[in-house]
Amino acid sequence: MSDHADTGGRPAGLPEPPYYAVVFTSTRTAQALADGPDGYARTAERLSRLVREVPGFLGEDSAHTPGGLAVTVAYFRDLAGIEQWRDHPAHLVAKRRGRERWYERYAIHIARVEHSHAFFRGAA
Amino acid sequence: MSDHADTGGRPAGLPEPPYYAVVFTSTRTAQALADGPDGYARTAERLSRLVREVPGFLGEDSAHTPGGLAVTVAYFRDLAGIEQWRDHPAHLVAKRRGRERWYERYAIHIARVEHSHAFFRGAA
Repeated sequence: MSDHADTGGRPAGLPEPPYYAVVFTSTRTAQALADGPDGYARTAERLSRLVREVPGFLGEDSAHTPGGLAVTVAYFRDLAGIEQWRDHPAHLVAKRRGRERWYERYAIHIARVEHSHAFFRGAA
Repeated sequence: MSDHADTGGRPAGLPEPPYYAVVFTSTRTAQALADGPDGYARTAERLSRLVREVPGFLGEDSAHTPGGLAVTVAYFRDLAGIEQWRDHPAHLVAKRRGRERWYERYAIHIARVEHSHAFFRGAA
């Protein structure tokens, strides 16, 4: 196995670059946890379904350290899809609610992916 | 508060774009958890210190869902810093070990950040 045996694979479900990544990092308020059935979790689940309908949406990766940072990376074919999602009515409502109640802080990075590769155990 | 009251802030510690983001998503083997004091956690901690010495390193965000996906985003001023880190001897050793023992799978995306903004509660 060469040192670069991992560089041949494509990340699952993603095309050859270029494509786009939207990196969303956030920490939530105590209220986001306590907000009940119409609160953060339900909204996040609904948005996660809606974004899949946006043309050019390629997939997303998400991780959340309990009590700490959450990082979600959504992949899009092009900027047009990102702009359509940014302006989606349900997303606009959720973003306003998020700033009012759910997020202590967040940051968004919109980035053009120039290179990507993947490793899968057993495939190297 | 306008709907775009969040768009004026810069993410903490980061300059105006363009800069670069390296997105690393991974799931670990059971062995990564059981590997003891010379294993995954110790190596990750050491690399996290070493990367701060790379010229152009701007910071990183990391989240890990217990038993699930980990997502780390490292920010760099330019591609030269990313290449220097890619070829760092301690990083090369760790990457080989990672493929041999610690990772079930991983993906790396190298992306040029074109736009970023941040929200901080109380600052909007």
